[in-house]
Amino acid sequence: MERMEPGALPEVAADAESPDVWGFADTAFRVLPNGSVVLTGSRYPLCGAELADLLPWMQEQIGIELRPADTRESGYPTRIPEARENPALLRALRELLPEEAISTAPELRLRHGHGHTLDEMWAIKFGAVSRVPDLVVFPQREEDVEALVAAAARHGACLIPYGGGTNVTNALACPERETRSIISVDMRRLGRILWIDPANQMACIQAGAVGRHIAAQLAEHGFTLGHEPDSIEFSTLGGWIATHASGMKKNRYGNIEDLVLDMNVVTAQGAFSRSAVTPRESVGSDARRWLFGSEGGLGIVTRAVVKIFPLPEVQRYDAILFPDFARGLAFLHDLTRQSTPAASVRLMDNLQFQLGQALKPRAAGFRALLRAAQRFYVTRLRGFDAQRMAACTLLFEGGRGEVRRQRRAALRIARRHGGMGAGEENGRRGYQLTFGIAYIRDFVMRHHILAESFETSAPWSEALSICEGVKRRIRAEYRARQLPGHPFITCRITQLYHTGVCIYFYFAFHCKGVANADAVFAELERAARDEILRRGGSLSHHHGVGKIRQRFLGRVLEPAALAWAADLKRAVDPGNVFAAGNFAAHAERQPGPQPEPDRTQARAGRAE
Amino acid sequence: MERMEPGALPEVAADAESPDVWGFADTAFRVLPNGSVVLTGSRYPLCGAELADLLPWMQEQIGIELRPADTRESGYPTRIPEARENPALLRALRELLPEEAISTAPELRLRHGHGHTLDEMWAIKFGAVSRVPDLVVFPQREEDVEALVAAAARHGACLIPYGGGTNVTNALACPERETRSIISVDMRRLGRILWIDPANQMACIQAGAVGRHIAAQLAEHGFTLGHEPDSIEFSTLGGWIATHASGMKKNRYGNIEDLVLDMNVVTAQGAFSRSAVTPRESVGSDARRWLFGSEGGLGIVTRAVVKIFPLPEVQRYDAILFPDFARGLAFLHDLTRQSTPAASVRLMDNLQFQLGQALKPRAAGFRALLRAAQRFYVTRLRGFDAQRMAACTLLFEGGRGEVRRQRRAALRIARRHGGMGAGEENGRRGYQLTFGIAYIRDFVMRHHILAESFETSAPWSEALSICEGVKRRIRAEYRARQLPGHPFITCRITQLYHTGVCIYFYFAFHCKGVANADAVFAELERAARDEILRRGGSLSHHHGVGKIRQRFLGRVLEPAALAWAADLKRAVDPGNVFAAGNFAAHAERQPGPQPEPDRTQARAGRAE
Repeated sequence: MERMEPGALPEVAADAESPDVWGFADTAFRVLPNGSVVLTGSRYPLCGAELADLLPWMQEQIGIELRPADTRESGYPTRIPEARENPALLRALRELLPEEAISTAPELRLRHGHGHTLDEMWAIKFGAVSRVPDLVVFPQREEDVEALVAAAARHGACLIPYGGGTNVTNALACPERETRSIISVDMRRLGRILWIDPANQMACIQAGAVGRHIAAQLAEHGFTLGHEPDSIEFSTLGGWIATHASGMKKNRYGNIEDLVLDMNVVTAQGAFSRSAVTPRESVGSDARRWLFGSEGGLGIVTRAVVKIFPLPEVQRYDAILFPDFARGLAFLHDLTRQSTPAASVRLMDNLQFQLGQALKPRAAGFRALLRAAQRFYVTRLRGFDAQRMAACTLLFEGGRGEVRRQRRAALRIARRHGGMGAGEENGRRGYQLTFGIAYIRDFVMRHHILAESFETSAPWSEALSICEGVKRRIRAEYRARQLPGHPFITCRITQLYHTGVCIYFYFAFHCKGVANADAVFAELERAARDEILRRGGSLSHHHGVGKIRQRFLGRVLEPAALAWAADLKRAVDPGNVFAAGNFAAHAERQPGPQPEPDRTQARAGRAE
Repeated sequence: MERMEPGALPEVAADAESPDVWGFADTAFRVLPNGSVVLTGSRYPLCGAELADLLPWMQEQIGIELRPADTRESGYPTRIPEARENPALLRALRELLPEEAISTAPELRLRHGHGHTLDEMWAIKFGAVSRVPDLVVFPQREEDVEALVAAAARHGACLIPYGGGTNVTNALACPERETRSIISVDMRRLGRILWIDPANQMACIQAGAVGRHIAAQLAEHGFTLGHEPDSIEFSTLGGWIATHASGMKKNRYGNIEDLVLDMNVVTAQGAFSRSAVTPRESVGSDARRWLFGSEGGLGIVTRAVVKIFPLPEVQRYDAILFPDFARGLAFLHDLTRQSTPAASVRLMDNLQFQLGQALKPRAAGFRALLRAAQRFYVTRLRGFDAQRMAACTLLFEGGRGEVRRQRRAALRIARRHGGMGAGEENGRRGYQLTFGIAYIRDFVMRHHILAESFETSAPWSEALSICEGVKRRIRAEYRARQLPGHPFITCRITQLYHTGVCIYFYFAFHCKGVANADAVFAELERAARDEILRRGGSLSHHHGVGKIRQRFLGRVLEPAALAWAADLKRAVDPGNVFAAGNFAAHAERQPGPQPEPDRTQARAGRAE
């Protein structure tokens, strides 16, 4: 089997993305005159369905009347900072790139200066962003990235790589005290699969390749990467590496660090680019591995060699209901210990289960009867309390026998914990909601509701305490501030590990009349993080640190470990050309080009 | 389930190790007056059996008569360099450690200055070691290690950590141009399992804990780490991390980087030591991860939190014969792709298969008849050529059903490649030889035979080419030098990966009458490495770089990646306190304490 070299994927015009809200431009939640909510467009199974229950249910949860006409209209784009002029830099860039690959267009610069944290989305609609990139460039060849580094160093500029712009860590926020020109390096034209090696099941993919394109193109050749973060429609391979990403099917395919075998990186000291890729090696402290989680602060990944897998013979969904969240969690534990869990297993708490129900069209006629009968069976005959039960969705992938065995084992273990099979259709629906649900945040913001997700990882023994503790803490902080109505706080378990789990929270509240609502939201989110850390959770499972969680780094890493990270940054990027990432605290303290330390002796030593 | 804190394991006097050859002092191969070979002692299944075929078979392979009486007697210890005196350092150490925990005993210093490469073992018996540690210290508390770093920095000394002394990379060889006192930090008194957490299946183990002790103590509590390098009897957890080790059961349990969740490290800038350990996180470029493969050059690991697993319900061996190595390799490929491979799967080439036969006692009576009948069946009825066939041994671990399924799948796939089941007993025997066989190298050295192992990893598509190419290259180099008899070169596949395999070679030749035999051996080994690299293999799969493979680093890593490693070393250990590891080229060029760069500004920045 020879290597295959797939062609480039054509840009699809219909795939335009919204600059000011999450997702595709043709997709958004809207309220109909009858009060039902509908997701526009036709991309997702949810699209077009009249969701009559959603607003009433939300209203009940937050304890505040939601009047559809009472909206807060976005002022996007509020104010876009002027680009700093740097004619010498611009001239240099024009020698490197075609004119159309260099832009100073205000909205483009604005979009490249933020991700999707609540405070960023609030700022671009209702507040202001104080600093955005001065230039956006679109390298088309990997050598262009190397040339950009040299040009930036020469002309007093720094580089911030841009993938899908989907981060939720303020990773793209420009360092405020940065006095140099900031160049956003949009990687998406470096978006090709360069080769597929079926014999060794590897593929070489450029870092700017977007998840959905990677999936589609590999599938044409019968393969999958198996990496499916919730942002897969927009996020890129380079972004996954830089943020140390995790996909929902990691039980079967592994996380990004398990999938990436090698990478090419453009650094301030030249490029890494190897010819031979082997399955595993011991060649010292591997510099490539330092890139995972580096968030753009050490260099720009231009391509990676990744493992690929044949498309699974069978893909099958399932769902299981549990009387409560604790019993669902006990099921997950035993499932991990006693069997091979499905590619993806998720456990929703009661509130999230209810949200799933509220996102269903109200059934009529025979379907309504059937549903009522089902509800009766579950809540009366089986004794489940509709206000307590939790739902687990599963996605099995693999060979026919393998999937059958995994599924049988899951149902057997579930029964021991009071679980009840809820059918393939409910499982499929749960996963189908993943992409549609991402549009809700910008929708509810229009209706005065601030919402955000945050995540952590924790050992099995601490998971329940964290889930419950964070909810209690949010409620207590909310009461203490006498904020209106009730906070909405819900969680799900999204990843299973031998030693613990990943926990994903959604938090929202109605902010009308709350002064400095965005700041209040940030305070509450920080309180939740404090609670997580106090109870033995991690600072982040896969979102990363960025600028939003830097203040907590000192609580999870010792001074010596922080010093090492800062020392590494200083050593390999002494001019701070790569001004992004979680090294930004360091970078902000030392704006502008750094004096180059005397490295003559050391260099000479190496060249001997 | 609460955490358990197992007590310390008592030292067993009978477990004394040989200073001058591999292994336990009570175990060695000897030639009996009748020409048979016997392994002394009673530790291994092989011990005590009269191996009548071994010498004749070896003789046939190397084409040179082996006369048992013609031995080269070891001059161990040939010459032990004097310790450099450093009274101030000694006084400082005596304030830190009890008198008996500090030694300048010549043989102890010698032992701490080498591992088990051929040139080291040759040097201590027949040649000379030019530099060994000046002092050996035995820290008993993790704080002792921190204090040692401070004392070393203050009194012009450097530290080289010592675990089991089993490395095969010249990692412990003292940098020749090092003018400071060299302190060998023997970690084995920091050898306890500090806690076992059954709920989360984690254990916290000190870095000096020896593999066999870890295994025994975890087993008492019903657990296993699952990490079984061939050196498990002597090597330590800290050594596994520092060399980026791999164990034979990695298919089931993972390699060392998959098993270690967290670690405490003493660095030149203080200690890393965290309280919360989570299953997976994204907190920037994780400094702990840089320790894998650092080979003692960045700091000293003092403890690690590792995953543990319940002891498997079933452990079952098996063996399969293939008509030739290529078909065996094709089987491994399909096994990896189409099923879950056994915990360990190894494929021996024909020469190694024959070696296994030569290590069997010559059977008599009924057993001899039976064996002859078996041979007849295999070679005549099945048409296997005894000079071509290859043997695969498998070790299944897991639940009963799981093992049954894996075994059935393996046999089914094997049949497609002409494989024939060779029974549980042959499989068990294959694995039992692992530890005994390690004693052969020092045995044959006494009989003028130089032998060494080396390994690589490669994509599936290159594996056969590397196996065959290395053998051809060794034979060609051997002929070109007109060396006596024939070279002995054999390989086995020891690890399976999604994208390729690990290949392990044994190479030996009879060196009587060869001038500078050790240098000739090194030349041939380097030729083999050159061939491996030319054919797309890695520099090392798990042995590491040390000093023996440094010359090749530039062929597998680009200048920018090498610069990063050197920059990291310089940044985090500016005084080169940790003078070991694959950073040694850098260290050797800058002997003695380095001028401390001006870090005041940076530090102040960090403390803000």
